[in-house]
This record gives sequence, structure tokens and C-alpha cells, in this order.
Amino acid sequence: MKVKTGILGATGTVGQRFIELLSKHPQFIIHSVGASSRSAGKKYSEATKWKITGDIPEQVKNMIVKECKAKLFGDCDVIFSGLDSDVAGEIEMEFLKADLVVFSNAKNYRKDPMVPLIVPTVNPSHFNLIPHQRSIHTLKKGFLVTNSNCSTTGLVVALKPLQEAFGPLETIIVQTMQAISGAGYPGVSSLDIFDNVIPFISGEEEKMEYETLKILGDLNSDQTECKLLDSTNISATCNRVPVIDGHTECVSIKFKNQPSPTPQEIVNVLDSYVSEAQQIGCHSAPNKCIIVRHDDDRPQPRLDRNNGNGYSVTIGRVRKCNVFDIKFTLLVHNTILGAAGSGILNAEIALAKGLLKTQ
Amino acid sequence: MKVKTGILGATGTVGQRFIELLSKHPQFIIHSVGASSRSAGKKYSEATKWKITGDIPEQVKNMIVKECKAKLFGDCDVIFSGLDSDVAGEIEMEFLKADLVVFSNAKNYRKDPMVPLIVPTVNPSHFNLIPHQRSIHTLKKGFLVTNSNCSTTGLVVALKPLQEAFGPLETIIVQTMQAISGAGYPGVSSLDIFDNVIPFISGEEEKMEYETLKILGDLNSDQTECKLLDSTNISATCNRVPVIDGHTECVSIKFKNQPSPTPQEIVNVLDSYVSEAQQIGCHSAPNKCIIVRHDDDRPQPRLDRNNGNGYSVTIGRVRKCNVFDIKFTLLVHNTILGAAGSGILNAEIALAKGLLKTQ
Amino acid sequence: MKVKTGILGATGTVGQRFIELLSKHPQFIIHSVGASSRSAGKKYSEATKWKITGDIPEQVKNMIVKECKAKLFGDCDVIFSGLDSDVAGEIEMEFLKADLVVFSNAKNYRKDPMVPLIVPTVNPSHFNLIPHQRSIHTLKKGFLVTNSNCSTTGLVVALKPLQEAFGPLETIIVQTMQAISGAGYPGVSSLDIFDNVIPFISGEEEKMEYETLKILGDLNSDQTECKLLDSTNISATCNRVPVIDGHTECVSIKFKNQPSPTPQEIVNVLDSYVSEAQQIGCHSAPNKCIIVRHDDDRPQPRLDRNNGNGYSVTIGRVRKCNVFDIKFTLLVHNTILGAAGSGILNAEIALAKGLLKTQ
Amino acid sequence: MKVKTGILGATGTVGQRFIELLSKHPQFIIHSVGASSRSAGKKYSEATKWKITGDIPEQVKNMIVKECKAKLFGDCDVIFSGLDSDVAGEIEMEFLKADLVVFSNAKNYRKDPMVPLIVPTVNPSHFNLIPHQRSIHTLKKGFLVTNSNCSTTGLVVALKPLQEAFGPLETIIVQTMQAISGAGYPGVSSLDIFDNVIPFISGEEEKMEYETLKILGDLNSDQTECKLLDSTNISATCNRVPVIDGHTECVSIKFKNQPSPTPQEIVNVLDSYVSEAQQIGCHSAPNKCIIVRHDDDRPQPRLDRNNGNGYSVTIGRVRKCNVFDIKFTLLVHNTILGAAGSGILNAEIALAKGLLKTQ
Repeated sequence: MKVKTGILGATGTVGQRFIELLSKHPQFIIHSVGASSRSAGKKYSEATKWKITGDIPEQVKNMIVKECKAKLFGDCDVIFSGLDSDVAGEIEMEFLKADLVVFSNAKNYRKDPMVPLIVPTVNPSHFNLIPHQRSIHTLKKGFLVTNSNCSTTGLVVALKPLQEAFGPLETIIVQTMQAISGAGYPGVSSLDIFDNVIPFISGEEEKMEYETLKILGDLNSDQTECKLLDSTNISATCNRVPVIDGHTECVSIKFKNQPSPTPQEIVNVLDSYVSEAQQIGCHSAPNKCIIVRHDDDRPQPRLDRNNGNGYSVTIGRVRKCNVFDIKFTLLVHNTILGAAGSGILNAEIALAKGLLKTQ
Repeated sequence: MKVKTGILGATGTVGQRFIELLSKHPQFIIHSVGASSRSAGKKYSEATKWKITGDIPEQVKNMIVKECKAKLFGDCDVIFSGLDSDVAGEIEMEFLKADLVVFSNAKNYRKDPMVPLIVPTVNPSHFNLIPHQRSIHTLKKGFLVTNSNCSTTGLVVALKPLQEAFGPLETIIVQTMQAISGAGYPGVSSLDIFDNVIPFISGEEEKMEYETLKILGDLNSDQTECKLLDSTNISATCNRVPVIDGHTECVSIKFKNQPSPTPQEIVNVLDSYVSEAQQIGCHSAPNKCIIVRHDDDRPQPRLDRNNGNGYSVTIGRVRKCNVFDIKFTLLVHNTILGAAGSGILNAEIALAKGLLKTQ
Repeated sequence: MKVKTGILGATGTVGQRFIELLSKHPQFIIHSVGASSRSAGKKYSEATKWKITGDIPEQVKNMIVKECKAKLFGDCDVIFSGLDSDVAGEIEMEFLKADLVVFSNAKNYRKDPMVPLIVPTVNPSHFNLIPHQRSIHTLKKGFLVTNSNCSTTGLVVALKPLQEAFGPLETIIVQTMQAISGAGYPGVSSLDIFDNVIPFISGEEEKMEYETLKILGDLNSDQTECKLLDSTNISATCNRVPVIDGHTECVSIKFKNQPSPTPQEIVNVLDSYVSEAQQIGCHSAPNKCIIVRHDDDRPQPRLDRNNGNGYSVTIGRVRKCNVFDIKFTLLVHNTILGAAGSGILNAEIALAKGLLKTQ
Repeated sequence: MKVKTGILGATGTVGQRFIELLSKHPQFIIHSVGASSRSAGKKYSEATKWKITGDIPEQVKNMIVKECKAKLFGDCDVIFSGLDSDVAGEIEMEFLKADLVVFSNAKNYRKDPMVPLIVPTVNPSHFNLIPHQRSIHTLKKGFLVTNSNCSTTGLVVALKPLQEAFGPLETIIVQTMQAISGAGYPGVSSLDIFDNVIPFISGEEEKMEYETLKILGDLNSDQTECKLLDSTNISATCNRVPVIDGHTECVSIKFKNQPSPTPQEIVNVLDSYVSEAQQIGCHSAPNKCIIVRHDDDRPQPRLDRNNGNGYSVTIGRVRKCNVFDIKFTLLVHNTILGAAGSGILNAEIALAKGLLKTQ
């Protein structure tokens, strides 16, 4: 019994990653692909400039691209949206109101307190917002869940087990070195990034500073909205570096509870973290959510980004910080766990939790 | 009346930069070049794999490389040392004891309280240690001055005017993205850094954390040693990125005196900073020690590293920090101001101060 | 007595290079800058995303960008066009018909037998077409000259002295490795060229195969048109590689006259080549049109592209070919000699030949 | 019934690739790993700086590295040698004389007429030299087979079907753009290849020109030696470009038999080529030895190098050449089919042909 999926923004960078991951998925099948009206009506292979190593999966090559209209995707059990934010707001809302299940990678609804912002190996408990969301929109089976910004994703995977084990975080300073694939295609001009660093990514720091507080926060007791952490200060600085895939982040943290844990205690907690996605046996959940490296010079994007098929976060250099308690460096695959993979693993969790009804 | 200079480690990366910069210098002439015994006796052009754009300067091509023995450099007014730290300690001390003037780029004597650690546009007042140094070593004209680690150099140029204007810094967190040229030649293997970030540079974080406190510190009242800043906490994280030249650094700072200055006040102070090196008319001193950029996406290594012929530090993204007071991003040319250029400008200052006697 | 210049397409990649080169020129001054109607009316610094190391030259920063209409440039002695080919055809013709002097970098009129296609260090004799061109268009002082495609430029600089010394070339096979700056801005997406080679550049092979035959050809006896070489076979293969500036070309050639010259004879001829542009003392003419390197591993783009301030072609690896007579590798700076620099040096030649009337 | 394999030079770049490929192999198991005396006695994970994405395979991590002495590898059914050529000659001969089966990636014995130089999808018929080789060395089961230089490998895969279908090649001109991984580790310094092309690879052109003629040649009638093609002229030019894996080659060829085939006929023959390795069902043989791309801008190393798990050659841009008959561009994965993969697939062929006796 396969789950029929539809992919919106299927010709873009995130859409291509959805297709690559879903083409090999044991439970999900690619049923429909949607893109802009410019692409609609064409074969997928003709509408797309494929940028992932390897070829377009056979089952998708000849699919006819549809316009992103809910009525054209009515027979899909799940919709994955890789739409750009300039169109995602309207389209995703139309799909939701048509009682469809939407997993969105766009930023548009991440700040909506009624919309769960879920990193699958971090806060699947936020799925508990869905009954309330359905009641507000008078839906029977549809709902909307967003995954997080790619840089935020890596950060919260590291912070969640520390928060669980050692209590609230008082302060977080994070500086990122982000891959070019995060900017989509054509995205970053080679003339801008060759032999260069770009010390700015529009809107990215604000996303990290907001989304971290929402993902690590709790739902209210009514399960009608998500409350932001209110006692944590976070400051993010985001840079683009000449790397194809994989965001590296240097993190310094201070715990509220003192004395703070030692680096070895931090390592132990990170290394032994098991998420609910693993416990309930989700197909795409990695063996280890977090891989701790003990070599001085790891993680490295080229060597570590595919750990856990891109679903693990790799952490190294856990050590004392002269200013705060602890500092470390983490790496997340920005287009797998940091984008399309989060959507897919979130859908697997929803399926396991009985939230997804297949037709 | 030209100053005769000798260059130790002349075939290496820093040595080549000394040669390139000195070959066009109006006051200094390249009189002797020294390298390992493997190179000694060869023509410079045959002993060197030249890695700087353009060709080996004509006046140096046919110079015979000497061994690094003080007696072979006795007729030099100034010695610039680009030696590796594994040999610099012994050789530089031999040169000093032979009453020669040595400007060293090596780390070996940077922690010696009697040896000035000078970034030319920051703390030339530390030249005041020289009388004491000479008296200890019973020298007439010789002395030893070191310049700072390349990453530290950029940082202290930014911090000095802030410290002067707004008082002590309580906390500094800095994360670097450093160029490959900082590792010398052959240095970083292309297989290690292509499409990659290396989140570790051996010893670099310790250097930044120590040297910053020495450079920004004062001499004691006897002018016999340099006192480290003791009320400033600094935490550095150093990364290697795929950039040829130019170290980028993301900095967050907290001032001791509150309320802290606004971003605009910070910009004003940085923008109007004038160093002693400029005031006394040193040839290599840039028009502006600090260039403040107001575009969101600057500084960038490829576009800004040659500002002020590589002697300026470029700063951008000055803004409030959620955790500390202020954060910003700076860029320093790591092999010019961050290495050979500091040595040369330090020598120009010494000349202007009457510390250098030409023969 | 300065020559007033106007720059069309001034905000683009080639236009920026025109501005950078002209801002330091002793004879030419930048009088007007033109761009699309989207930019017209704005300050140059606001209309332009400057991509060359260093800042926008002061004298241009506050110039108001004009639309590319001939009447707005009537007081310019020379027009340099860095326009894209989709608009260059019409605009340049309007300027020509307004009796203006136009040096174009666009491809539109390169195949017109009445329009000289001139690489300044190769075939300035083709300026002899101008009287005929003026008579056809009934112009008093205006004319239109194009420079060549960037890859062709490097090739013909190497071939011209060989043709002069050893007679006609029977066969030329050339394979290029071209820099990203050749594609303009934003041009090549970083996702397309990082860790990659793109084995195709649209239209480039045809340009090399055609333009080489025109540039190395003679004018007819009436000096009314340029005759293509008709006994030379040329085959070009063009690739894009991850290099910022500098096109590298591997060339194999066979001479008509046998026995063919030895590699040493080839080297001698290349090394001693002096172009008319040098002889008549043009400011931008390099000391040597061709720099022959004898090291096995040169030329290299990063080390050799700025030779002769970007106006020299560097050649190395001159050796026998198992299939043809000789093979070698050459390097040309694609945005200096290969684009804007050719236009400027062509204008200097025209000035020296009395073809340019200043007002 | 598994085949026990030993890997010489196991800590190097090629050795690591052998380990990565063999760790997942259904027929071969890694039984012993050998390296220099400096590594011998250590755990593999401690002796090795692993440079392939992902981690060292579990079964190898704790293996103790042996010295490369035949007596220590006597229980191996097959030896794969990734040794450097400066030691491979002596060590491989010692292993051969000890009656071991050696598949070597080194160049040392490639020119020996009695040693087969085999590209597995091209000339497995050269295994017929083995009886003679055994008789000369009085071996019962041992033999020595080499695979080809990485660039040659890609070329001959393309040429073999053309030679079979259209008869002898009169002329071949090939220009390569080779990946940095071909130079091993640390190999190419990042300072040499960033933003650069190196137009020279020592010995590479000679290898391509010689090995192509041996691989495409026939054995003599006695099957005692391989005869070089003697009527084919080949000229190779080799360049290093900033690409991690995957050699790109631009090829122009002329056939002896005229009229020559059309591009479409060439495409048909390439596209339908089936090698013996596929016919006899070798595990690592790709579905297609040659993948023909019809898009203008393919093959590209980043997108196509993993085609057929790195065992396919991808060819595009098949078109008429102005000088010869046909030109095209090909891509080969230099460390899989171009190195370790050839050794493994050659061993699979030997196993299928009954040349390998397992203990």
C-alpha cells in the first residue's frame, strides 16, 4: 500500500532533491509533479535542468508537469512543497483548504503559531497541533507542516539533547559557513563565490534566531499553539562559502544551570541521543541522529555531509569555551536533512502516527 | 640613502611576499637572501618555486641564496625573517646576539615579555621595550621585534580604536574563515580543501587568544615588559576555507562600560581611526587603516583584500548583537598586513623613530 | 589634450573593465557612461554591482548613467561598446550613422566584410578598411571597428608571427579551457562550475573558427573588404573551467611549407615578435606581445594572466606534435586583451594613425 | 566461497578506493592490507588519513597493516597493488615470483610485452598472455596484470568500438582536463590549482600515447606478446584542472577507411557497445560501458562521473571535425574505472575465465 505523493516546485533545487529521495523510497511513490505555468504541460525531463549527480529517475522523466492547483493533485495522499516563498504562501494555503496534507519547505507559514515547525529528529511532538489546525480550517484529513530553515535544522539537532539533559540554554552564539546549494539554482553566481566568502545571506540570521526558539519550545497546554523559548538569547551570523553541499556551524553555548556539563558529558549526551523518528522505525531515520567525531579536524562538509544518508548531523571539536561553557562545530546536509529530507521524514512520522490517510 | 635588508626564509611563501613588497620599496633594498642549506649556493630563481602572480623581481633572480648565518648578513641594516617556527627560534637568536635588527614573522618569541609583538597600525608604542631588550642582551643596535599571527592582526586593528574610544572590552568571540595561503606552500592539499571547510588550524585559536591580549595590553611603567590584558575574555574558533588570500573574521564583543556604543558610534570610530604609522608618514601605511563598508555583503576576500595595497583592514556588517553589544565582520590580507607587510611597516616605523641605524 | 570617451554597457562585466582600465589612462578620459533604460538616470555607483577587485574609480562613481542614444554621446571622441549582442547591433549602428567612432566588443558586426575585426597586436593594417567604410556610410569622422572574441584573440597573437615567419598554416586544432568571467555576470552559476568542467560554450567554437581566418587574412587590393584565409583548416573545442580570469588554449598546428620549423625556431620567432602597436608607442601596448615560458608547467592562468598588464599572451610547452608539426599552450587575459583592453589599444592605434579626431 | 584479497599501498589514494569498493563486493573479501614499514604494525584506521566520503569500512578499521612482503600475503587469492611506482617494481615482482596473482595499478610493468595491460571493458583477450607469462616465470597459479593509466582508460573505451566497427584509426588528437585526485594525496597543493589550470602532468602524455597503442593492439599469433598498433598517430596534451574526480577528454580522430562514418553512426556504435565483461556477467561491469549524452553541455565531471557506479565512460558532443573526421568529449572516473575499479573488474574477469584459483 503505497502513499501517493505530489511534489510542488518539482523542477527547482529542493524539488529535484525530493524526486531523487522519493524515487528510491519504499513507501512513497511519486504520483504528480507541479511547477510554474511556464513548465506545466511539458515532460518533466524537458522542463527541468537536472543538477543532481546521476540522471533523472526513470519513473519521473516522462511525467507531465502540472500547474500547482489543488484540484490537479486531489488524488495525492501527501504534498511536498519545494516552492519558492514568493508563491508558496498562496498555493500552499489553497492546497490546505482543499483538505490536502502539505509538508512545506518554504518559510511562509513557519511563524504561524498554529503551524508546526518540525525538524523530524527533534520535535515531532509538535504534530500535536494538527487537531487544532484542522478544527480551525474545518479539515477532515488535511494539514500543513513546515520544516525548518537548513541552518536552523543542524543547530537544533545539536541543542535538543543538551536541553533535555542539562536544562535550558541561556545563550547561543552561532556562526555559519553555508553551501551554495542552499541558494537554489542558478542561485549564487560563480563570479561572486569563487575564491571568496560572502558574509551575508538575506534573512538567514533572523530565521535562525526565530526558528530555534520555536522548535525548542513547547506547545501550550491546550495544544493550540507553540510557545517560543523566552529565556534564551541567540545571536547568529551567516556566511556563504565555496562548498557545494553541507552547512558548517560553529556554536558556543552557555547553560542556565551551573556548574555546566564537561565536554565529555556533552559528547556522551550527543553520542547517545535517539530521536522518536528512530524509535518508531521511520525508513529514512538515520542509525544515529548525531555522529560525534573525535578527530580535531572534523566535521568536514565533503567527508561528512552524507553521513546517515544525509540525515545525520555530525559534530566535532566539543571543548570548553573561554567565554561561555562549551563550543563545538556541527555539519548538516542542507538539502537533505536541511530541506527535502526533513519533509520526507516528517511525512514518515505522520504516517506512523496515523495522521496520514492513504486512499 | 637606502636601507639594506636581508630576508631569511626567502624561498618560502612569506619570504616571497617580502621580496615582492621590498622589490618596489623606495627606502629598502634587498641586499641578501637566506634559506636552508638545501637552497644555499643556488641562484634565487633556481632555488624557488615562485607562487605570486607575476615574475620574480629582476634584482633578485640571480642573487645567490645564502645560509641563514648571522656572519653572512652582517652588512644588512635590517633582517626580515619569514622562517618556519621549527628553525626560527635558534636562527633569530643567533642574529639578535650578533647585534642585528630582526623583524620576525615566526611565533617563537611572541610570548617573550621582553620582545615587542607589534601590529604596525595598532601598537607601535611597544617599541619602547627595545632599550630594555638591548640592555639585557648587551646590544648596541640590534633588537628583535615580532609581528603577530595573521588572524590576530585583523582582529586587533578593529579592536584598538574601540578600546581607545569606549574603554575595556569585557568579552570577544571571534570565528575565522582563513585563506589557504596562510598555511604556506605546499601547505593545504587541494584534496583537503576543495568543496570543503576544515574546522581546525593547529595552534591558531591559542595564538589569537594570547596575542590579542598582549598587543592590546600596555607596557609596565619601567618599560621592561608587556602586560597582558587581564580583564578580557576571548574565545576564538578558526576554520580554513577555499579562499586564496584574505582572512574573514566574524566578531561579537561586549564592552565593560555600559551603556555600550551604538552601531553608528562604532562605525564612526572605526572609520576615523588614524594610526601613528600614518601620522609619521610611513611609506607603506595605508591612507586608511580601516575601511568601513556599508553594503550588507561586504567585506569579501576577493574584492577587498587588496584595499590599501593589502595594509587596510575592511570592516562591514556593524550591527547589534542579541547576546553581546556589537557584532561585525572584518577582512585582513593575511600575507600582507597579516605577515610580511607588518614586518616591513614595523621596520619603517623603527626607521622613523630613529631605532634603525643604516651603515 | 584628452580624448573624451563614452562607454556603452558600462554596468556590465566588460563595461566595468573598460572603466577600470580607462580610469588610469593618460590619454583617454571617461566622459559618459551608458546602459539600459533600467539604469539610466541613476548614479553609476547605484546602477552597478561592481565586481572587479578594488572600488569603483572616483571619477565615475557619481556620473549619471545615460541611455544608449547617439545624441546623448555626441560630444564623445570615441565610443567603447561593451553591449550584449542582443542590443549591440541596433545601437552601434545608430551611433555609427551619427558619425561617431565606435570600438565594439560585441559579435554583431564581426562578420561584416567592411568592418575591421582587429586584434591590436596582430592586424592593425585592417584599419585600412575605414576609408571605404566611411564612404559607404557617408561619414566624415565616424567608423566602426570590432575586436575579436576572447579565445580567438589569444590564438591569433600566437599564430600571426608564425604565419609571417614560416608561411601559411595548413591545419590548426585548438582546445580551450576558458574562465568564468568570459560569461559575464551573473553568468555561470556556481552550481554549474564548482568541481566541474562544462564542455560547451554556445557559439564559441564557430567564432574561433571564423574569426581566426578573418584576422589572419588580408584585405583585398581595393581595401574594400577583408578576405578570409581559404587554405587553412581550423577545428576548435571550447570548455569552461573553474578559473576566474584567463583562457588557456592547447594548440596543434601544421604548416603548409615543409620541412616545418623546429620547436626552437618557433620559440625564437614568438619570443622576438614585435607588433606595430608597440612600434608606434601605444600606451597600453605591452613590452612584449608574447612571453615565452620555458618551465614545463606554464603558462598558468593565476600566475601569468596579468603579464604585460593583461595585454601579453603567454606561451609555453612549445614542442613537437606526433600528429602535426608543433604543439603549444597559450594563455590570454580574456577580459583585458581578450575584450576591453583590445578596444582601448585599438583606439590608441587609431589615434596614432590619425584616424581619431578629438574635438 | 569468497576470494581473499590483499591490498598493497592500502593507505594511499588508490588503496583507499580499493578498500571502499571491495568492502561492498559480493565475491571478494579484504583479507590483508599492506603499506610501507612506517605504517606496518598499526591499525589501518591509525595508519590512514581516510579521504573518501564516508568512513573507513568497519571490517578494515582494526586490521593490522602489514609490510609488503610476499610471505605475509601467501594466503591471499588475489593481490591488488595501489603502490607508488617508486616501490611497485620490486615489490610486485617479488609477489609474482612467489606465485601470487597481482593486479597492479602502477606503471612499472605496463610496457613489458609479456604483461597484459588490460582495461576490463576493452581488451580482456590480452589475458591470453598469461600462460606464456607463467611459463617464463615457472609459476603455477600466479600472474601479473596491469591496468592502464587513468586518462588512457577513458580514451580506449571510446576508441575500441569505433575500431571494431569502422576499422583502423589513422590519427588521434586528445587533450585532457584531469582531476586532482589523479595525483594522489597530498598530491596537488591547493595554492597550485585554485583558480588555475596546470598545463602539464609529468609523464602523462607519453603514457597516453604508448598505452593506447598497446591496449588497442593485438597479441601475436603465439600469444607470447602484445604488438603495438603501428599505423596510428596519436598526440596527447594533458592538463590538470580544479575538479576533484573525473577526467574530461576532448578527442579528434581520423579513420583510415574513407568515407568515414557520420556522427550518427558513431553515436550508434558507441551507444550499443557491449564488452565481454558484461557478457560474462561480472559483478562490477556496468549496464552500459558507454553512455552517450545528447545534450550539448555534457558530459560533466560532477554530474556524470558516477555513471555506472564509476565504471561507465560518458561521451557527448559527437560531431564532425573541420580537420579530421569526428570529434567528441568523454569523461571517465579516474579513480574507479581509471584505477582501482579496473583492477577489481579485471580480477572478476580472471575469475570468470578460470584463471583465479581460490584456496
